[in-house]
Amino acid sequence: MAQKKAIVLFSGGLDSTTCLAYAKSKGFDCYTLSFDYGQKHRAELEAAKRIAQQAGVVHRQIELTSLGQLGGSALTDDQYDVAEHHEASAIPLTYVPARNTIMLSIALGWAEILNADSIFTGVSAIDYSNYPDCRPEYIQAFITMANLATKRGIEGNPISIETPLIQLSKAQTIKLGLSLGVDYSQTVSCYRATKEGLACGTCDSCYLRKKGFIEAKIADVTRYVIT
Amino acid sequence: MAQKKAIVLFSGGLDSTTCLAYAKSKGFDCYTLSFDYGQKHRAELEAAKRIAQQAGVVHRQIELTSLGQLGGSALTDDQYDVAEHHEASAIPLTYVPARNTIMLSIALGWAEILNADSIFTGVSAIDYSNYPDCRPEYIQAFITMANLATKRGIEGNPISIETPLIQLSKAQTIKLGLSLGVDYSQTVSCYRATKEGLACGTCDSCYLRKKGFIEAKIADVTRYVIT
Repeated sequence: MAQKKAIVLFSGGLDSTTCLAYAKSKGFDCYTLSFDYGQKHRAELEAAKRIAQQAGVVHRQIELTSLGQLGGSALTDDQYDVAEHHEASAIPLTYVPARNTIMLSIALGWAEILNADSIFTGVSAIDYSNYPDCRPEYIQAFITMANLATKRGIEGNPISIETPLIQLSKAQTIKLGLSLGVDYSQTVSCYRATKEGLACGTCDSCYLRKKGFIEAKIADVTRYVIT
Repeated sequence: MAQKKAIVLFSGGLDSTTCLAYAKSKGFDCYTLSFDYGQKHRAELEAAKRIAQQAGVVHRQIELTSLGQLGGSALTDDQYDVAEHHEASAIPLTYVPARNTIMLSIALGWAEILNADSIFTGVSAIDYSNYPDCRPEYIQAFITMANLATKRGIEGNPISIETPLIQLSKAQTIKLGLSLGVDYSQTVSCYRATKEGLACGTCDSCYLRKKGFIEAKIADVTRYVIT
């Protein structure tokens, strides 16, 4: 039987790197997909390339920088600063409108071209930043739509969307990744990472990641600007 | 009351130009969105800009040319030729995997940024090329997903997706457009259009368009390479 193929949405951060390791451990032939949507934290794109190369998988980076002309997020728009983390239930300024939908849609196109069986995404509904497009009901609706949109779907051979981290806390994700041999010092999660990939330690993304290492009782190997 | 806003997916072809005229006639403040996905028929992008300018609407063109590195369609891939039209029930080579999903997703992002009420798309389930992502059940599934993905949706103020042409034949679309003042000589539908926007007259897209004018009993104003 031919090896199953999977597209892995791959930012080079903690979650997607765990997701890649998980998909490989399940026997998938993996294809990683990154997006340059004009994010200020460019270091994650370099991290993604490096980690994909080390993992020996085919990697593609899609240019979506012209989305910047539509405006709207602190992650891409110079008129906003990425804020320090604070507890809140509202959707934060770092939310990029429809980002997961856009990325999953492009992954769906690639999946159809490769005749891939699955798309993996490292979204989590536990330790997340209140983004609406990280919730299980959203993922389920995307699957339904995707299988009406594509050849495979209408031919009765649906593509699946796998979210192995969706019910995991950051600490559980870190434990899973370590059990699969992930080297988290290679990954970049920070929204304000320096060119060299050093993390600020205080943005939303750093906050969740730090908390994860603490709760997992595992030494934080992240490379911070100030240690 | 503030004027309602609409994003109009806008290729500069017959359907989307009719769609724009329709949305304007319904009182929407329109924002048109085109995609450069590496299509060989570049003239449609120029037609889109020109028609949007004449209509006095804000127009944006999103660069998706890096999707070409994923391969897969005769509309973008130099290893395939766009075929002459022939009757068939299969999905043709000109199908671009997940294209409508990708374009609607980006429109959704812009809609969220502008706080737009609706997205208009000129898909038709009548005179179409057997693309799975032109069917009403697909559009319905996209709406469900979109309103789980976005701020507006979860705040109980859903974005709508309007498909005014979905049950219209090409002939009916042409009649609708003419009643709204559309000048179809400005529009470019051909998959093999020359730089100057002249149509080949024999590809799938030309076939459907020609048939539309004939069935509508209206003189075909399309500018063909060979008349």
